[in-house]
Amino acid sequence: MTQEDGLARIDVCRKRIDEVDIEITALLNERARMAGEIGKVKHAFQMAVYAPKREEMVYANIFGHNSGPLRDDALRRVYERIIDEMRNLERQQGPGEQDGTQPKGGAA
Amino acid sequence: MTQEDGLARIDVCRKRIDEVDIEITALLNERARMAGEIGKVKHAFQMAVYAPKREEMVYANIFGHNSGPLRDDALRRVYERIIDEMRNLERQQGPGEQDGTQPKGGAA
Repeated sequence: MTQEDGLARIDVCRKRIDEVDIEITALLNERARMAGEIGKVKHAFQMAVYAPKREEMVYANIFGHNSGPLRDDALRRVYERIIDEMRNLERQQGPGEQDGTQPKGGAA
Repeated sequence: MTQEDGLARIDVCRKRIDEVDIEITALLNERARMAGEIGKVKHAFQMAVYAPKREEMVYANIFGHNSGPLRDDALRRVYERIIDEMRNLERQQGPGEQDGTQPKGGAA
């Protein structure tokens, strides 16, 4: 491989990373909408927000579909951040924008 | 909405979250493979690993495609973790598995 080939290969990889990031961004936002909806239902019926069993199911699903190269513990650290940001979002939104209720984030 | 409807709605949302998480997991792994390939090329040609301009382009791409509800700063925090885990991965892999080189992660 010449250096020119190398630079071309980096360019191809970066273009693909940009596409992947657009897809991930859309999926994270979809996940946030779903988590928000769950929060509203839970609030409406005064159900427990934090569901540790559900949280373990979320990780079991991810690890069960992890073909690498990222290790399960790396994915767990990424998802701890993702779930945390979904909770932050619901705190920012505060009292339900449409129905006056105050949803709170759980593991969703 | 009855409580039964609410529980059914939570179930639908959780099933969709599980599907979304499978897609995100696959995309994160694809991203890790691309970043690893870039690292190998950079090492082979002794190119600078850390590329702050590229990192800013990564965030500009994400923010430019962010339609919410997650805010840009939330996505930035998630991506700081993602990029960090890609660097960890390359450190774990150590000297290149196939070619004896030692790639190091950058913003890719």
